[in-house]
Amino acid sequence: MRITVLGAGYMGSAMATVAARRGHAVRLWGTWLDDALLEPCEGGGAHPRLGLPLTGIALFRAPRLAEALIGAELVVHAVNSDGAVPVMKRAAPHLPDVPVLSVTKGLLESPSTGRMDRIDRVVSEHLGRPVRFVHAAGPAKAKEIARRVLTLMQFAGAPRDAAVLARALSGDGLVVGTTDDIAGAELCSALKNAYATGLGLWDGFIGAEAHNARAACFTQAVTEMRALVLAAGGRAETVHGAAGVGDLHVTAAAGRNRAFGERVGKGRPARDVAAEMLAAGELTEGYAAIASAARFAREHEVRALPLLDALDAIVWHGAAVEATLAHLTLTV
Amino acid sequence: MRITVLGAGYMGSAMATVAARRGHAVRLWGTWLDDALLEPCEGGGAHPRLGLPLTGIALFRAPRLAEALIGAELVVHAVNSDGAVPVMKRAAPHLPDVPVLSVTKGLLESPSTGRMDRIDRVVSEHLGRPVRFVHAAGPAKAKEIARRVLTLMQFAGAPRDAAVLARALSGDGLVVGTTDDIAGAELCSALKNAYATGLGLWDGFIGAEAHNARAACFTQAVTEMRALVLAAGGRAETVHGAAGVGDLHVTAAAGRNRAFGERVGKGRPARDVAAEMLAAGELTEGYAAIASAARFAREHEVRALPLLDALDAIVWHGAAVEATLAHLTLTV
Repeated sequence: MRITVLGAGYMGSAMATVAARRGHAVRLWGTWLDDALLEPCEGGGAHPRLGLPLTGIALFRAPRLAEALIGAELVVHAVNSDGAVPVMKRAAPHLPDVPVLSVTKGLLESPSTGRMDRIDRVVSEHLGRPVRFVHAAGPAKAKEIARRVLTLMQFAGAPRDAAVLARALSGDGLVVGTTDDIAGAELCSALKNAYATGLGLWDGFIGAEAHNARAACFTQAVTEMRALVLAAGGRAETVHGAAGVGDLHVTAAAGRNRAFGERVGKGRPARDVAAEMLAAGELTEGYAAIASAARFAREHEVRALPLLDALDAIVWHGAAVEATLAHLTLTV
Repeated sequence: MRITVLGAGYMGSAMATVAARRGHAVRLWGTWLDDALLEPCEGGGAHPRLGLPLTGIALFRAPRLAEALIGAELVVHAVNSDGAVPVMKRAAPHLPDVPVLSVTKGLLESPSTGRMDRIDRVVSEHLGRPVRFVHAAGPAKAKEIARRVLTLMQFAGAPRDAAVLARALSGDGLVVGTTDDIAGAELCSALKNAYATGLGLWDGFIGAEAHNARAACFTQAVTEMRALVLAAGGRAETVHGAAGVGDLHVTAAAGRNRAFGERVGKGRPARDVAAEMLAAGELTEGYAAIASAARFAREHEVRALPLLDALDAIVWHGAAVEATLAHLTLTV
């Protein structure tokens, strides 16, 4: 099939690699921020983040968006949540009516309701027409997918579209399940970045010997994610599968959100840590994800979220780590 | 209250410490294998495993079992699964009709059915009368409980007994929920040792960059634990809480079962690794737990457990790690 990948960062380049390996004709388009990532690849070198050359993949810089999309049978949307609306607005005039696999995590403000909502709905609102989004959830670090490490993903969308994408991309270590619970899968993807930050806090606060506290918060995170998913119209089973517990596990075990939490747990102001990490090119999604999740909870009147409240207080309202964690009330 | 703790290992000494801190009159009885653990404590020194002195706790060596139990209002059973029947048989004549909190993990063969069953039921069968067992599940490493690290436990038993125990022991970082799902809680405690070994395998097999595979197996473990719990008459909600995902998280993140899995994942025969760890005093419960869980699954005709089958094949039947993991089929 002809597959176009939008966004040439970690996940875009990884999904392009997977698609090429499956024998598809792959075009990878980089946004106006991706030139530095594409340049070495154009000369046959390794992708700076993925660490692998993009063999057999046609590369397109930002101005060639229309050309990259022409005749595409499947599209992969691998732009971060800030870029989702601007990129899809530019792409819209050239976007065929095909399934769009979105690996973008987060929540965005709906222009019609002013409330935080799922990315697929907000983008479709901005475009004035429905996009056939299929959300890719699950524990999938880009570098490992590209290296054929066993990876479980859950594609959530209209059943036929999700099935076509799953068939096109699975294999070689990538195992893909499908579900029609788009709300559950998108919420899980957005929320796990927030909660993984929470698990990192304990590492900074107590140190390595905080396994019980981390596991207590992991359990609490699953409970709170379920409450938020149900409020969004999603299903509990999605939280208990790859999109929920699986993705929370991988995000909490490693990565930038955990590292961010750890530094904040040591008592440093969250704003300073976020600024440092941003300057080092290590944008931490968890920082913004906590504010988005807290706002989503308020707007949907989901109460009894003590862990999210504690994270929001520490990270966004300057609450002291020690006092806040000491008074954390778990749901038992 | 007067609380007697049977078994002076990691968890017995930790629970005795917790109970003493709550103001109870605590007696800690050591089995015939625990003399070396009690000796330094009798002189006011630190418990060799816990690393803390057992302040304000009356210590009883093995021959003084009757004396340790007289007038007890609550009992904590902290003997490992091999010792459960022999210890409870000796204790039975002196055991008051009070709630018995069991922190013992595992499955035992029922003398009446010859099948693997829950410890509370097998012990009651051996004793010829019901014991008021309340099973303590959840992510609770003994050293961290004793050090007041936030810990979430789930006490499963008859509602009044579970509530009395929860009130008696919670506080100071220990948060206790209660449930009447004894089957679910006991199965989770037994199974997580088996599945944590499975997560360790990936560390040995692929190395550190196996986050996706570990998270895929974490997800698969939750799915398979749920199937086994339902077959035992337990409830899914128990698997999705502290007893299940919580305890699996802590067990997989650290500890002897994970270490065992890691060494086997590097290709060493499981029998050799188990023997080495036993010789070093690091008994790995996961080794036996895999065989017990596989037998439980067969006897209860639970099928579609690809991860447990793979673990059993590698650890007990000499299957090659690489080929077995490469053919692992996840439930999606």
